Amino acid sequence: MTPAELSVRFFLQLAVIVAACRGVGWLVRRWLGQPQVVGEMIAGVVLGPSLLGALAPDLQAALFPPESKAILFAGAQLGVGLYMFIVGLGFDRNEFSSNVRGAASVSLAGMAAPFLVAIAITPWLMTLPGLFTPRVTTLEATLFMGAAIAITAFPMLARIIHERGLSGTPMGTLSLSAGAIDDAAAWMLIALVLASFGDGPSVAILALGGGVAFALFAVLLAPRLLAPLGRAGEIGEGRLAIALLLFLLAAFTMDAIGIHAVFGGFLLGTAMPRGEFADGLRRKLEPITVVLLLPMFFTFSGLHTELLILGDPSLALVAALILIGSIVAKGGACYVAARWSGQPHATAMGIGALMNARGLMELIVINIGLQRGIIGPALFAILVLMAIATTLMASPLFEALYARPARRRGETVGGLEARPGEGAAGPGLRKGATGPDSLSEHSGPASQLP
Amino acid sequence: MTPAELSVRFFLQLAVIVAACRGVGWLVRRWLGQPQVVGEMIAGVVLGPSLLGALAPDLQAALFPPESKAILFAGAQLGVGLYMFIVGLGFDRNEFSSNVRGAASVSLAGMAAPFLVAIAITPWLMTLPGLFTPRVTTLEATLFMGAAIAITAFPMLARIIHERGLSGTPMGTLSLSAGAIDDAAAWMLIALVLASFGDGPSVAILALGGGVAFALFAVLLAPRLLAPLGRAGEIGEGRLAIALLLFLLAAFTMDAIGIHAVFGGFLLGTAMPRGEFADGLRRKLEPITVVLLLPMFFTFSGLHTELLILGDPSLALVAALILIGSIVAKGGACYVAARWSGQPHATAMGIGALMNARGLMELIVINIGLQRGIIGPALFAILVLMAIATTLMASPLFEALYARPARRRGETVGGLEARPGEGAAGPGLRKGATGPDSLSEHSGPASQLP
Repeated sequence: MTPAELSVRFFLQLAVIVAACRGVGWLVRRWLGQPQVVGEMIAGVVLGPSLLGALAPDLQAALFPPESKAILFAGAQLGVGLYMFIVGLGFDRNEFSSNVRGAASVSLAGMAAPFLVAIAITPWLMTLPGLFTPRVTTLEATLFMGAAIAITAFPMLARIIHERGLSGTPMGTLSLSAGAIDDAAAWMLIALVLASFGDGPSVAILALGGGVAFALFAVLLAPRLLAPLGRAGEIGEGRLAIALLLFLLAAFTMDAIGIHAVFGGFLLGTAMPRGEFADGLRRKLEPITVVLLLPMFFTFSGLHTELLILGDPSLALVAALILIGSIVAKGGACYVAARWSGQPHATAMGIGALMNARGLMELIVINIGLQRGIIGPALFAILVLMAIATTLMASPLFEALYARPARRRGETVGGLEARPGEGAAGPGLRKGATGPDSLSEHSGPASQLP
Repeated sequence: MTPAELSVRFFLQLAVIVAACRGVGWLVRRWLGQPQVVGEMIAGVVLGPSLLGALAPDLQAALFPPESKAILFAGAQLGVGLYMFIVGLGFDRNEFSSNVRGAASVSLAGMAAPFLVAIAITPWLMTLPGLFTPRVTTLEATLFMGAAIAITAFPMLARIIHERGLSGTPMGTLSLSAGAIDDAAAWMLIALVLASFGDGPSVAILALGGGVAFALFAVLLAPRLLAPLGRAGEIGEGRLAIALLLFLLAAFTMDAIGIHAVFGGFLLGTAMPRGEFADGLRRKLEPITVVLLLPMFFTFSGLHTELLILGDPSLALVAALILIGSIVAKGGACYVAARWSGQPHATAMGIGALMNARGLMELIVINIGLQRGIIGPALFAILVLMAIATTLMASPLFEALYARPARRRGETVGGLEARPGEGAAGPGLRKGATGPDSLSEHSGPASQLP
């Protein structure tokens, strides 16, 4: 294929990808009351070998010829990198200061239990064919598995908290703080696995040392160095270009030393000047990232998701086991810890339901694992299922266990009655919907397909 | 190279590209008073074989390995496609209603003279080696050459007119109308060449018929069909996705029938609901398009620009001849026509200076010509030179021939004294600058590198 032929195909691919993501997203929002992100995760799987490839292999092969993979991958990488940068921009350090004991216990439980499950099952999983690659050590496999179970869809959680007007409530601060701490810890452990997974100790040292150095730089030095960028006034092309340039360099550096572009993006995002600048930058980057680039990631991920593997009964059993273990470990442990730190039953249930949602974050983690050859296609398919299932569960569980009882008690929790206006991120939800209206893992204005 | 290696390289490439475009852009703005777009055109050439490749071939080859070309090309295509969509969104039919006789004569002159030059020199150019490919007929070569000489940097022209507060003046309406008419005519002729250049008459009929059908659809039917999109309120993800999906389908269709993605983008852009919707859409698409994607186009173009070919004395002579002929034909003819339609000398000079700037539009035209195998690398290099030179000339000429005399007469023309604020597209220009401050071929807020 010449570049020109590839580019013709590229426009068609993108059109199909955007149409599938919005279409399935609309369906799950409209009929299941689910957030848009669930629809996009499913749309990616639909376009891959699990559905389109099984039903119409020729059409699927024509739409996504092998030569086009590199382009899709580049777009997907740029998409998740920018997305994590945007998540970092929205990371508000002030939001999780109160209730330190509660946050510490919930987040600790939300890490410890998943890792106990990982320690218990990983050695057994490693004896089964196709779940892990032969190169992986038990320690690496366990760390990766633990992180994959422990990760939380932090941006989606933050979005739900804000949209329902729960910021500042025990429910809000507890889950926001615990989610943020858990995600930070999980990502650090994944970085550790990626670092140790390099070719030999010198590579690992470079990765670890570089990763730690960049993290320290991003937390301690960068906010002061970047402060001049945050001057008042609309962000012009010049400042936007500088922010993008820094993002690209951070992503490249983290990629080149063997960690991953998303770390660079996220850490840089947290170091950017807060307030007007961070908000303005998000407004400029978010539209194309969320509507055009992230769908490329969902599709790239879906093209590697072979759900049909799980038709094998023994693998289906493994999948069910991992799924149940993960849900109990993450959601259950967070519920217990919240109860232990003095929260009433309903609040603790709500926290457990939200912390259990893994969403796009899980998808990013496991795609890194697959790309780097840590996990095989079978475990990848199982974990895709886990990402979709735990995200699907979150909204109905949260509604049934927390929001509805709270409304019955007369508390104000954005719920089924209100309809969001397009634009302002209103606290309400559309009629019949129990999840937030929009992509839900970022915080742009909510939207509706007409 | 694995996709992962390519993606590491991709972040580095993008960083180098953004840094080069902003860096050279800043230099030409700061020291030459030129618009950003001139800097980005030069930056692309700098990164290609003409400079970086000649000075440090290993570095250049490491930065832009052949495998990465497809990714760069896809990004560049998306960039120019979206850019032309944005240009279409900014196309205001009301702006060129008055002074029909003047607009008609200037635009007619601005088409006729370039085509006379093309008719005069193309047969001779075709006898020289490496300018046109052997497949091209004299008619096709002449039409392409005429369009390449006649094209105007319409978006840049519109930007200058608005920024200097000249909308509504004879200067403003005349050059806006004439520029728009000329560009529309030139693109139609290029579409004609591309259509006739297909493999056999059936392909040409498909291209021509499809192109005409789509143009008629975009002008007559689409505005009514798309009107519901233009309802009030902030554009949410849903409407943005629909607009992008339509753009992708239009770009794909025009690409697939053998015309080019940019036509689809531009025509669709003109058909979108005007006002709040078009403005909001531009605000969402423009930042990443202008700061990240268009630089990929400038670089892709620059990677194919071998200016060193023009070291050959006979080719240098050809280049000088084409350059002078084009400037006289376009700028001179527009001046004469403006005088003939009753404009004073200074106004006619200003119109000639602006109409002669070819900017990014020329670069898009000639990249299509090179990709489709109409022109060879030597003519491509000559026309890159023409694009840069005529754009470089525009601002100083406009300032010297029109703006300064006008200010001396006490008219208000945004000029050297005022300093623009970052954000609001102020009418003034930065100290020492004679061109607009920002990219100048789109209409976002002006920006400054710190």
